[in-house]
Amino acid sequence: MSEPQAKDLTHLFSVEAKSRKSSPLKSAFIYYGKPGMTFLGGGLPLAEYFPFETISAKIPKAPFPSGIGSKVSADGYTDITIDKVKGQPNQIELARSLQYGFTEGHTEIMKFVKEHHRSVHGMKYKDWDVIATAGNTESWDSVLRTFTGRGETIFVEEHTFSSALETCNGLGVNTFPVPMDTEGILPDKFEELLNNWVGPIPKLLYTIPTGQNPTGSCLSGDRRKKIYELACKHDFLIIEDEPYFFLQMETYTRDKSTRAGKAVHDHKEFIEALVPSFISMDVEGRVLRLDSFSKVLAPGVRFGWIVGQETLLERIVRLHEVSIQNPSGFTQSLVNGLLYDWGQSGYIDWLIKIREEYTHKRDVCIDAIYDFLPLDYVSFVPPVAGMFFTVYFDASKHPKFEEFDKDVLKIEKSIYEQGLKQGCLMIPGSWFKVEGNSVPPQTDVHSNPATKNLVFFRGTYAAVPLDDLVQGIEKFGKAVRIEYALE
Amino acid sequence: MSEPQAKDLTHLFSVEAKSRKSSPLKSAFIYYGKPGMTFLGGGLPLAEYFPFETISAKIPKAPFPSGIGSKVSADGYTDITIDKVKGQPNQIELARSLQYGFTEGHTEIMKFVKEHHRSVHGMKYKDWDVIATAGNTESWDSVLRTFTGRGETIFVEEHTFSSALETCNGLGVNTFPVPMDTEGILPDKFEELLNNWVGPIPKLLYTIPTGQNPTGSCLSGDRRKKIYELACKHDFLIIEDEPYFFLQMETYTRDKSTRAGKAVHDHKEFIEALVPSFISMDVEGRVLRLDSFSKVLAPGVRFGWIVGQETLLERIVRLHEVSIQNPSGFTQSLVNGLLYDWGQSGYIDWLIKIREEYTHKRDVCIDAIYDFLPLDYVSFVPPVAGMFFTVYFDASKHPKFEEFDKDVLKIEKSIYEQGLKQGCLMIPGSWFKVEGNSVPPQTDVHSNPATKNLVFFRGTYAAVPLDDLVQGIEKFGKAVRIEYALE
Repeated sequence: MSEPQAKDLTHLFSVEAKSRKSSPLKSAFIYYGKPGMTFLGGGLPLAEYFPFETISAKIPKAPFPSGIGSKVSADGYTDITIDKVKGQPNQIELARSLQYGFTEGHTEIMKFVKEHHRSVHGMKYKDWDVIATAGNTESWDSVLRTFTGRGETIFVEEHTFSSALETCNGLGVNTFPVPMDTEGILPDKFEELLNNWVGPIPKLLYTIPTGQNPTGSCLSGDRRKKIYELACKHDFLIIEDEPYFFLQMETYTRDKSTRAGKAVHDHKEFIEALVPSFISMDVEGRVLRLDSFSKVLAPGVRFGWIVGQETLLERIVRLHEVSIQNPSGFTQSLVNGLLYDWGQSGYIDWLIKIREEYTHKRDVCIDAIYDFLPLDYVSFVPPVAGMFFTVYFDASKHPKFEEFDKDVLKIEKSIYEQGLKQGCLMIPGSWFKVEGNSVPPQTDVHSNPATKNLVFFRGTYAAVPLDDLVQGIEKFGKAVRIEYALE
Repeated sequence: MSEPQAKDLTHLFSVEAKSRKSSPLKSAFIYYGKPGMTFLGGGLPLAEYFPFETISAKIPKAPFPSGIGSKVSADGYTDITIDKVKGQPNQIELARSLQYGFTEGHTEIMKFVKEHHRSVHGMKYKDWDVIATAGNTESWDSVLRTFTGRGETIFVEEHTFSSALETCNGLGVNTFPVPMDTEGILPDKFEELLNNWVGPIPKLLYTIPTGQNPTGSCLSGDRRKKIYELACKHDFLIIEDEPYFFLQMETYTRDKSTRAGKAVHDHKEFIEALVPSFISMDVEGRVLRLDSFSKVLAPGVRFGWIVGQETLLERIVRLHEVSIQNPSGFTQSLVNGLLYDWGQSGYIDWLIKIREEYTHKRDVCIDAIYDFLPLDYVSFVPPVAGMFFTVYFDASKHPKFEEFDKDVLKIEKSIYEQGLKQGCLMIPGSWFKVEGNSVPPQTDVHSNPATKNLVFFRGTYAAVPLDDLVQGIEKFGKAVRIEYALE
């Protein structure tokens, strides 16, 4: 046990987090289940009255030899069953999962998640833990409440997930944009911004480093390291929102014949091919990782987890006690049942298959861009992670640039609407732009003349079958040709 | 359609609620699923990759002729199955429940809940609706965020659920106690308090009117009516937190032979025997009802709902979009499957059986109090709703009253600890006391000399089997006898 302890960062807690008290009722709960003690302290209904005796699910069998999705053969499935009373080891029986309690998440599922996390990310300090949440959207809301308050400012990527911004907006938290390029945050520009910052440094950087939403970029290990050093130097937390982490892919190659050979071959190779996470380099306990099953199992399970130093997580658990309480018991029993049926190794097999699927989808998508978009007018970086791709256009080359008073937003709108007319919806990049209106600009790092006439659009290769995807990009290509007067 | 519209109460929104914006992404979603449109707008994984093909559950068959719990016979169960792709009407298939979306709750389950609500409560205005939540604890947090802010004050019952107070505490919302007796809030005292109030009237009254936690009281229809009138006159909202509503019982009678004849006989009688809810008398749309399956199905399903006027609910949905998103898809599919298997009528049958069970538990509990507590030293009101009973003691009759400097809290602590020594845990009433510290007392309604030396303890007859319950009360009786030097 030579790892260090995390640093004391409790000075970063919000007024809300600092004011939370432990309920006196908790002190009574130490007597719950004590031999000889009749516990009349809590309003818990008897499990006898829960109208669910057993639940079961049909799931694909690890290691998924023929693939996942429609490739699973009829005998490639197995059934898992969860009883009301504990029958099997590692099962979260319904009498427990459907009862009150266990805000941190049930022991079995949290143990699985923690072991999985350790095997992928390693951890450089001792006192870290994992707590359950209702998914990353809820995690983000809880993190904001635990570290910020109305009128405070946080750092976010210049273009980011609009829903994450709206969470800030409701809470009255200002968002200040950190400069980025097509590969994510620019550490040098960020450092410049920090060095010139007037007033207290924001307490949080919110980032989606892998398969960034909306740009689809993947931040390199090198840039992450530099940004982490900035966090240590300027004393802020990094909140890495990482739902897309396992949707990493082989790099794109135009030559289809070389693709098959590029897949990862075993678990070790798979883990090593992953970009290092912020939390894997964290020695001070100043990274909180928001993780989730939404993109690798299913969004509707509404189960996420936060990894970080115990002392910081404890305040989030106190918040959860008086808000979500815990993720659904059905979710915990069923997902836990699936995970223990697969095992740690089977779960990695699943992630490898997911990687294969998304690599193929991305390939088909980029092939279609090469096939159908006017290559002289578009630029793009084939994504290596996530669900999104982006295509950039130079608005100044648009025939109506002068007519539209050189307003790039009008050009963007024109292309968006032509896309709709041709039957393909891509989201305009400006919808994700962080204005940072409420904080006066303190540096000039945002006025890069090389990019000021660029507009971009976000698309996804995740949500539609492959033939629809190709057709959609063909239609969007037609829209762009019309807009640029090429047909 | 002669019912009125709800009153415009949007002036009661918090800064947080007023600042919420609709995401521009929502405007794109109108194109989702439109014929001829390739929608590349959203990062939704394909249902094909959800590793749950079907889920099923073994549930008791309505109308539960032999009872519920351990009384269900082997052939009294049936299986429900939910497929990935829609197979049956009213089913929420997994491809939908495990996908993103539907923050308001899925159509089928919300339709069921709405019909159920209407059949029980009736509704006196047109524009009401029902939205899904992750349970009443989460509902309460969201309601507070939607109507109050740091530094504001709300009304709560003088003794109330400590967790609900802790939700306020974290948000910086002060709680001002409304006087109550063993039957709940005293409308006259409340009116006096309101008439003497200095400054803006708090925007919310939080109340647990039925089976109140911790006192076990049930507020009469008459008192509710008077309190509702006060809400209209003084322009505040009533938040009725009603998880125990269907745990209403026959009144307690000492004579066991008369009990069997008192049960409700049919659905009509059952509905009519229920105390009228605040929302059933609401004509202005100023009641929000927090309802839940926690006490009638199982707490761990983490599914609740809020009923109220549409305009107020809309802001809570916006908050949910950037926090919980929606209750678990497994929960929605399974609970919905159960509800449609039972039907509206079967669900009422279930509630009638629950009523029978809790009536019996309450009877056994009160019988034991008569049998084992020193009746000259204890007072109590047999509860007619909920999970809790309370026993009151006159601290001034305690032998150590003088020695403890007439400090009733010391007497309470002494009895609590003697209970633990004898092997029964009951929660001291002072743990639920609302101090209202942060607001200076503005009336003298709290200094009732008749009650100032009373201490009380909260117990539950819900959480333990009947023989443990009787044994527990016997042990607590012994503790009280020792404390009052009776043995």
